[in-house]
Amino acid sequence: MAIETVTSTEAFKTLVEEIKASEGYREPVAFGIARVDRGQKNADKVLQANYAIVNWKENYGSAAIFIKALQESRVEVDFSGSEFVATIGDEFVKNAMNAFTPYLAEAVGEAHKNVQVIKTLAAMEDIGRNFRITFLFEDAAPRSVEAVYLKLYALSLGKAPLRGVNLNGAFGVLSNVAWVGNKPYELEYLRENEIEMKLNGTFPNIDSVDKFPRYLQHIIPADNTRILDTSKVRMGAQLAPGTTVMPGASYINFNAGTLGPVMVEGRISSSAVVGSGSDVGGGASILGVLSGTDGNPISIGENTLLGANSVTGVPLGDGCIVDAGIAVLAGTKIRIDEDQLEKIKAANPEADLEDKTVFKGAELQGLNGIHYRIDSLSGEMVARRSTREVKLNEELH
Amino acid sequence: MAIETVTSTEAFKTLVEEIKASEGYREPVAFGIARVDRGQKNADKVLQANYAIVNWKENYGSAAIFIKALQESRVEVDFSGSEFVATIGDEFVKNAMNAFTPYLAEAVGEAHKNVQVIKTLAAMEDIGRNFRITFLFEDAAPRSVEAVYLKLYALSLGKAPLRGVNLNGAFGVLSNVAWVGNKPYELEYLRENEIEMKLNGTFPNIDSVDKFPRYLQHIIPADNTRILDTSKVRMGAQLAPGTTVMPGASYINFNAGTLGPVMVEGRISSSAVVGSGSDVGGGASILGVLSGTDGNPISIGENTLLGANSVTGVPLGDGCIVDAGIAVLAGTKIRIDEDQLEKIKAANPEADLEDKTVFKGAELQGLNGIHYRIDSLSGEMVARRSTREVKLNEELH
Amino acid sequence: MAIETVTSTEAFKTLVEEIKASEGYREPVAFGIARVDRGQKNADKVLQANYAIVNWKENYGSAAIFIKALQESRVEVDFSGSEFVATIGDEFVKNAMNAFTPYLAEAVGEAHKNVQVIKTLAAMEDIGRNFRITFLFEDAAPRSVEAVYLKLYALSLGKAPLRGVNLNGAFGVLSNVAWVGNKPYELEYLRENEIEMKLNGTFPNIDSVDKFPRYLQHIIPADNTRILDTSKVRMGAQLAPGTTVMPGASYINFNAGTLGPVMVEGRISSSAVVGSGSDVGGGASILGVLSGTDGNPISIGENTLLGANSVTGVPLGDGCIVDAGIAVLAGTKIRIDEDQLEKIKAANPEADLEDKTVFKGAELQGLNGIHYRIDSLSGEMVARRSTREVKLNEELH
Repeated sequence: MAIETVTSTEAFKTLVEEIKASEGYREPVAFGIARVDRGQKNADKVLQANYAIVNWKENYGSAAIFIKALQESRVEVDFSGSEFVATIGDEFVKNAMNAFTPYLAEAVGEAHKNVQVIKTLAAMEDIGRNFRITFLFEDAAPRSVEAVYLKLYALSLGKAPLRGVNLNGAFGVLSNVAWVGNKPYELEYLRENEIEMKLNGTFPNIDSVDKFPRYLQHIIPADNTRILDTSKVRMGAQLAPGTTVMPGASYINFNAGTLGPVMVEGRISSSAVVGSGSDVGGGASILGVLSGTDGNPISIGENTLLGANSVTGVPLGDGCIVDAGIAVLAGTKIRIDEDQLEKIKAANPEADLEDKTVFKGAELQGLNGIHYRIDSLSGEMVARRSTREVKLNEELH
Repeated sequence: MAIETVTSTEAFKTLVEEIKASEGYREPVAFGIARVDRGQKNADKVLQANYAIVNWKENYGSAAIFIKALQESRVEVDFSGSEFVATIGDEFVKNAMNAFTPYLAEAVGEAHKNVQVIKTLAAMEDIGRNFRITFLFEDAAPRSVEAVYLKLYALSLGKAPLRGVNLNGAFGVLSNVAWVGNKPYELEYLRENEIEMKLNGTFPNIDSVDKFPRYLQHIIPADNTRILDTSKVRMGAQLAPGTTVMPGASYINFNAGTLGPVMVEGRISSSAVVGSGSDVGGGASILGVLSGTDGNPISIGENTLLGANSVTGVPLGDGCIVDAGIAVLAGTKIRIDEDQLEKIKAANPEADLEDKTVFKGAELQGLNGIHYRIDSLSGEMVARRSTREVKLNEELH
Repeated sequence: MAIETVTSTEAFKTLVEEIKASEGYREPVAFGIARVDRGQKNADKVLQANYAIVNWKENYGSAAIFIKALQESRVEVDFSGSEFVATIGDEFVKNAMNAFTPYLAEAVGEAHKNVQVIKTLAAMEDIGRNFRITFLFEDAAPRSVEAVYLKLYALSLGKAPLRGVNLNGAFGVLSNVAWVGNKPYELEYLRENEIEMKLNGTFPNIDSVDKFPRYLQHIIPADNTRILDTSKVRMGAQLAPGTTVMPGASYINFNAGTLGPVMVEGRISSSAVVGSGSDVGGGASILGVLSGTDGNPISIGENTLLGANSVTGVPLGDGCIVDAGIAVLAGTKIRIDEDQLEKIKAANPEADLEDKTVFKGAELQGLNGIHYRIDSLSGEMVARRSTREVKLNEELH
């Protein structure tokens, strides 16, 4: 069996509708074709998936064609689970090429990227067994390396929002490997060959040992984004255009990142999100759900400044300032003078702040326009209305 | 036309004088020949300039020869602007070789480096169009990538003092590129070829995405200088011999650096300068003109210790100590006891310190021998005379 | 002369006993065969030693065979010093192969690694002059590059305990070199070839300039160990299985490391040791003997938490907490309320704590279950009994 050459866009659309209407068919929420890196010792173990294109709640027609092309290549597609992954071969490529025929000529540049993938595969003599296709039928906990990577791509490409993807158990799915350039090596393989490699001078130059690769191994950032050291951004991080990541003490973990231009010289831990125009100062730490926030993921608003070596363990609103070297945690006691409290209330009309003079950090979380500082003569932590403008949401007030 | 073979050093000197006396001739303050990396998509765009030798207020004879060699190769040299850049070809090389003939034999090792450059180019079969010569006729805002790099080299080679070069607008001149080893790639080129590279397994291993390269991509440090991670020092930084840059939280930006042996485990922001024998502790931050110093560039004196995770936002003199974890900013209020104030005055005879007990950080800026600390029982920031010796300038007193 | 083929394991053992009984024979405490990298300019200068296997107080039989194989290859082994290093040749390999004959077949995987080394060398056509054998007869100050590396391997492989090896003078023995991947280059060689390399586009991509290589250039970590950036761990560090080193502000120097699973996001300075289950928070600094501890090497106990951007300058016991941003140094004054002091005493029955309310950091060093924090309203540093469980040593009480 095979898909025959489709000769018009109308015929293509008809074919897609037929496939979608077939019994048991289920529309994937995400899919993509990846070149995979396999274990040197255990070739059945996938160590990494390199997606040329990731489809996330889009391009359902191409998904239908890919599913049909698999089926016509005698691969039974299992729609019953949350995900399905299969090795593709030349027969799959031939089927997909036939189906995509009406689009082959125009599939260049930004147009028809899935078709470009098939064209590129068709141009290879034998695609071997290192190309895999992944379908996610729902956003459940990932069960395969290919599914984890598809989700990390979705985050890093900005196709899925931060904290918007189910990555439960991802650490258990991925193998811990030695990364040599873009290539992952099984540690056991290195151990077995250590004597020979050391004596022959071919022991590899390992960049890192981790379950995750780095962002720049897979993602091409926007023209105005800068990452001064690739080790500072893990795959699965999301960087809005205009973000700059300096090489000092900075780090952006997976499922963390920025929503607009942000200067990053500190740590954005997993699940933390920083708003547009904010500044994460040198050595500043935004705590993550696994490090001191009681599972409370931290959002930093827009136009907020985290001073050098400050530590932030509570969410902050827009236009805030945390002074250099200060730690604001959920339990930190903070004095607010009466006049400043009035100004803070004015900047946060929707907040319901008690009339008192000492607040815990957690009570102030998410508020706009607060300047956290320490009185250097008394050692007292105080909060004031910051000098930074806060744009109030006019619709609310 | 061509420069004919010069047969003696006297004839060479005569030729140089003739060139300098020619109408419209202008002596360049800096010049050099670079191998340039061009855009993969747009070959007219220069992405990087690799100078074998940089001449900064020196070697005016070689400059004259290079200008003449250009003119004799039918390149019109425009002396009217602040800089002039041109592609050189084999004809230029031939002319320069002819002029340098008396020096060819002795141009080895440290001698006659410009002649060595020409000899090396002459030994190539065809130099193509990737070699460019740059002349700066004044230290104005750079207008070309080649001029920016010439200035960054001057800083990093110690030929120009820190803060002594006009780099206004340099960020606008340079392209943001992906660095793969020493080679810059246009991001748009990567985007256009992403599908093919991902599927063929040839997607490059990107080290950084930035407008600037790293110091070690261009500069060979002194024998006793150590840089434990290349990402930690940007091109344009200046490291005096004996400086050590550790890999933890350190970073030295362009137009920043050290004036003698310094242990660097923290951040030296753009425009900050650290004196000989000082120690920038682990995670210590010296703020830059763009990050909290109100445009006041920070100098740290000699034999001064910035404790781990301290933050310094004001200039410091010699023999100071900032305790671990402390932030000293322009507005920080600091108590000084009467007896300590006397000792601080003795260490700073030229300073005009008021007789009072509370000072702002800005009032103490640049003073020698101050120890900044926090009283851990009262939380009060205090300054005392440090235990470090301060060498007074005998000529002044 | 030559070692003749040994035909049985009994004959092997007899040969070993004969060698050990020979006059002047001295058992080495450590030995190994390394492939060395030599200077590009000065081939007599060894820049790096790559050991396939390191023997540390073990495998004395193989040591005897290697010594005999050297002697039979006309190398006079000098037993009089603390170490002996010699270049090995094909004759040495032949002798050792003959002696190891009874073990050749079974020398695979984890068995008989020294025999595997010889087999691998025997399979090369000509081993040239880049293989060196090192014997340490005592743990004295190292005198050769090969001895320094042997000791760094012993530490990093966990064969010698942290602080358990004499590395006095190691910095003077090693050369400062440019590391390009795993290969060291003399800086002077780069300088001499800079013009040619820059113009030919062959200037190397330097990763670091240091006397030490990185841990991952020589060591394959345990399967559950993660090092997200190779620059963060220096050769000579020791990482217990399960340790994770994040890429933000972390760093682990040589002769420093972890004794069990530890999350490392901060700095573990030379000579510092962190116990199992502890957490070195983002940007946290553990001071080293050269940076503020008065030569007092710092041990951190088990299950202890160093908060983000904290600084620890005194040893800590088990179950301690240092709050984010706090510096605990030997001279820091710390208040302890009476009820908390009783609880701290209960957790430290062997300690002899005075009945008072203000302690210096040094007085509390090594105690278990202490929570160091700052009262954010008074600025006062206080210590309390932490909420973390401390396991008392039942045998002692």
